Amino acid sequence: MSAPDPERLSLNTATVSKRWSLAQAIEGCARHGIRGISPWRDQIAAMGLGAAAKAVRAHGLTVSGVCRGGMFPAIDTAGRKAATEDNLRAVDEAHALGAQCLVLVAGGLPPGSKDIAGARAQVREGIAAVLPAARAARVPLAIEPLHPMYAADRACVNTLEQALDLCDALDPERSGALGVAVDVYHTWWDPKLEAQIARAGKKRILAYHICDWLVPTRDLLTDRGMMGDGVIDLPKIRSWVERQGYAGCHEVEIFSALDWWQREPDEVLAVMKRRHVECS
Amino acid sequence: MSAPDPERLSLNTATVSKRWSLAQAIEGCARHGIRGISPWRDQIAAMGLGAAAKAVRAHGLTVSGVCRGGMFPAIDTAGRKAATEDNLRAVDEAHALGAQCLVLVAGGLPPGSKDIAGARAQVREGIAAVLPAARAARVPLAIEPLHPMYAADRACVNTLEQALDLCDALDPERSGALGVAVDVYHTWWDPKLEAQIARAGKKRILAYHICDWLVPTRDLLTDRGMMGDGVIDLPKIRSWVERQGYAGCHEVEIFSALDWWQREPDEVLAVMKRRHVECS
Repeated sequence: MSAPDPERLSLNTATVSKRWSLAQAIEGCARHGIRGISPWRDQIAAMGLGAAAKAVRAHGLTVSGVCRGGMFPAIDTAGRKAATEDNLRAVDEAHALGAQCLVLVAGGLPPGSKDIAGARAQVREGIAAVLPAARAARVPLAIEPLHPMYAADRACVNTLEQALDLCDALDPERSGALGVAVDVYHTWWDPKLEAQIARAGKKRILAYHICDWLVPTRDLLTDRGMMGDGVIDLPKIRSWVERQGYAGCHEVEIFSALDWWQREPDEVLAVMKRRHVECS
Repeated sequence: MSAPDPERLSLNTATVSKRWSLAQAIEGCARHGIRGISPWRDQIAAMGLGAAAKAVRAHGLTVSGVCRGGMFPAIDTAGRKAATEDNLRAVDEAHALGAQCLVLVAGGLPPGSKDIAGARAQVREGIAAVLPAARAARVPLAIEPLHPMYAADRACVNTLEQALDLCDALDPERSGALGVAVDVYHTWWDPKLEAQIARAGKKRILAYHICDWLVPTRDLLTDRGMMGDGVIDLPKIRSWVERQGYAGCHEVEIFSALDWWQREPDEVLAVMKRRHVECS
């Protein structure tokens, strides 16, 4: 298997945001020769959308995605309306940044609810409500299935198959306006992963996120590993998305309270660059 | 929805094994009017197989399962042979106890391996190797899909669909010798759960395990909740297995280092009895 193209590497800013602002992350990417970046919305707001857009353009960075829209389920109509409005703002921000997609993290159960089927229906309705504006802005929506351990509190879309069922329902013509973000951390375990990546095809693979699954994993949320430190066969999964013609970024998103968030971001970026080529 | 039959309640001894031996658990079940028990093999060994079998018979308890066989993947032939032999001993123990099934927890990746497809192939071979002896002993093998968060280190069978694919491959005649253990903790999130329970049917639902999924979950392994304390819609899932004609035990298995393992087992059993009727 050939090594990945270093030009495809992208930094999801959550990997370094405990120590770096978005402005610092943009400069850091430029300094390290990392050609892609994926900012979180709180950081965009802190920097200012215009300033962020100007900075990424000035350095010629690819914005591999904006994190994140979604979070649709709510206990009442007002909550669902607020979620839709927030997603419309996120579409505008992604448009202003020239992002390749807006990543959608579905949202979990509303407080007090045990109705996961109902939450899933709300996600479907929420995406349907946002899709026309996303089409108009030419911002593809990338549904990111999250690991089943987040089904209750973060995302009730938990497999690639389920995300693609949503795509089939809401964009049956495969227009390119709706697709998926394939994150190896959330999907590596799935016995149907290869088949569902093939089902998605080039048109629906809008983003590819990498990191690693550590053994043991000490925390459900903040113990992701750097590529090569865990058990995910990254070259194999990359071969599956590349076989479909995926030629987008390889975005590195590492939540790591005990390790990488403790380190100097310049060190993190240097290791990330090396591991991208050597281990993924 | 009608309340569950209290007679179906079964205690998986892991719920109380930090404080009670198997002998104490058997006596505890008898004292609390709990009619089922599911012992772990280390506890059976500590008590002595003959003594354990005698005690469960003396109290007329149903042994809803023996925990556990499986753990098939290994780095070499010797390791796989040892796993098979251990599973054959587990079949003998389950037979001696008159257990309704031997629960199989597949096992994860062998040390140093990133080949989950290979591990899954080893699981299939391992079950195939044990199945003839299990048939002969009339001990049904119940493949328990474990939550995907355990794919690396405990079980690489992670969905009911995957477990049923194994059943179809290894027991296409649906003889009853091979089926699944449906544990709500591992499967509640699965968008295909209802459909796969229907696919399993009465013949292949060999065990039904209950507890609850806490929000937040503070530990990947030892933070399961008592029925009613989490977000799982237990009556709904029970209705799905009962619709298939399942009339076996409702086995309570709670790993809870921070809560239930800290309490007096007599209190745990009293709460468990009440919550079974009220919340599941």
